[in-house]
Amino acid sequence: MKIGIVGGTGREGRGLAVRWAEAGHDLFIGSRRAEKGSAKAAEFSREFGVSMQGGDNVSACNHAELIIVTVPYSAHGHTFESIKEAVGDKVIVDITVPLQPPKVRSVHLPEGQAAALEARALLGESARLVAALHHISSEHLSDPEYTFDCDVLVCGDDREARVTVIRIVSDLGLRGVDAGVLRNAIALESLTPVLLHINRRYGSVGSGIRITGIPETQ
Amino acid sequence: MKIGIVGGTGREGRGLAVRWAEAGHDLFIGSRRAEKGSAKAAEFSREFGVSMQGGDNVSACNHAELIIVTVPYSAHGHTFESIKEAVGDKVIVDITVPLQPPKVRSVHLPEGQAAALEARALLGESARLVAALHHISSEHLSDPEYTFDCDVLVCGDDREARVTVIRIVSDLGLRGVDAGVLRNAIALESLTPVLLHINRRYGSVGSGIRITGIPETQ
Repeated sequence: MKIGIVGGTGREGRGLAVRWAEAGHDLFIGSRRAEKGSAKAAEFSREFGVSMQGGDNVSACNHAELIIVTVPYSAHGHTFESIKEAVGDKVIVDITVPLQPPKVRSVHLPEGQAAALEARALLGESARLVAALHHISSEHLSDPEYTFDCDVLVCGDDREARVTVIRIVSDLGLRGVDAGVLRNAIALESLTPVLLHINRRYGSVGSGIRITGIPETQ
Repeated sequence: MKIGIVGGTGREGRGLAVRWAEAGHDLFIGSRRAEKGSAKAAEFSREFGVSMQGGDNVSACNHAELIIVTVPYSAHGHTFESIKEAVGDKVIVDITVPLQPPKVRSVHLPEGQAAALEARALLGESARLVAALHHISSEHLSDPEYTFDCDVLVCGDDREARVTVIRIVSDLGLRGVDAGVLRNAIALESLTPVLLHINRRYGSVGSGIRITGIPETQ
């Protein structure tokens, strides 16, 4: 599948891109500046022995069948504004957590209650918007040897889009779990500060969550 | 330990009381009406072959070293008002989830962002308030043979109170995990609608969460 990663030059983008490229997907690394996107795509390709392209964020959307947005919350609104016209009816996954440094271990609700709900307000109600991947350590993603024992909660108002994302998440070596409507992103996003607290409290480098009481495979 | 359960006549109260009584704790079932509290305490005692007392909610608080509040969200504010004077510096655990029927599978944030934050506003900043036990099926609690494979997230601003609650949760046959400040109740409470969605989506009678990436025992 053609996957474009908006804001893909950071640590999350690197981990996602490498795992998906290794699983056989066609990756495009987007950045605000086209040169940076291209340079990072070349760097990731060399580092992990895979092949991917890069350029600006709008090109990442145009290239993609599935769009991933991974930017710091401070760049969230601006980024969605900048790609709005290029999204169309493609499935777009917002993985943003609205952390408020330095209090990253305490839940902070943004004005729109969730970053994903703010993204919907910018893209419009018809956008095929999904929120997911809030609880995965970029360090673990970037280590091809690392085996996850946690799940990925996936929410969005378009059920078919959720199914698509759950399938693509499995190519990262993770189980995706259907978490319901987009509004449930409030729960998903606000769980990240809790996990950051747990990391510090229990000396973990990457705590996660697993859903119990459902069949192991779906 | 002396445990008083405010609103303890419902399904959650029954499950908690029975498990704790079997673990050797001294239980008091509170209700708005003293007669109902007494009657339910007698009923639970007969049904499970344990011994516990009952009466009104204020008596439950007066009797207790540790207070549990389990009421529907619609009775939450009124209940905290009614016991306010009886709480003092005792540890009090709010397990309320602000569900909004009939849309119980979609996150609903109350005016104060979390029931537990609203409880703090009513009790005052000095209250030793903890939020926990939002994700445990009352059906499973009431079945003494059932073995849990999920965790209980415990948050509150008083670390010592969190430790007390984590300890008492272990007597239910559950692992408590320190989830940080009381504000993180936003995440804990809003995860319940997600689990209710997952129950329906995957045909589960009681999905739960487990924290991965931390030591098995603390």
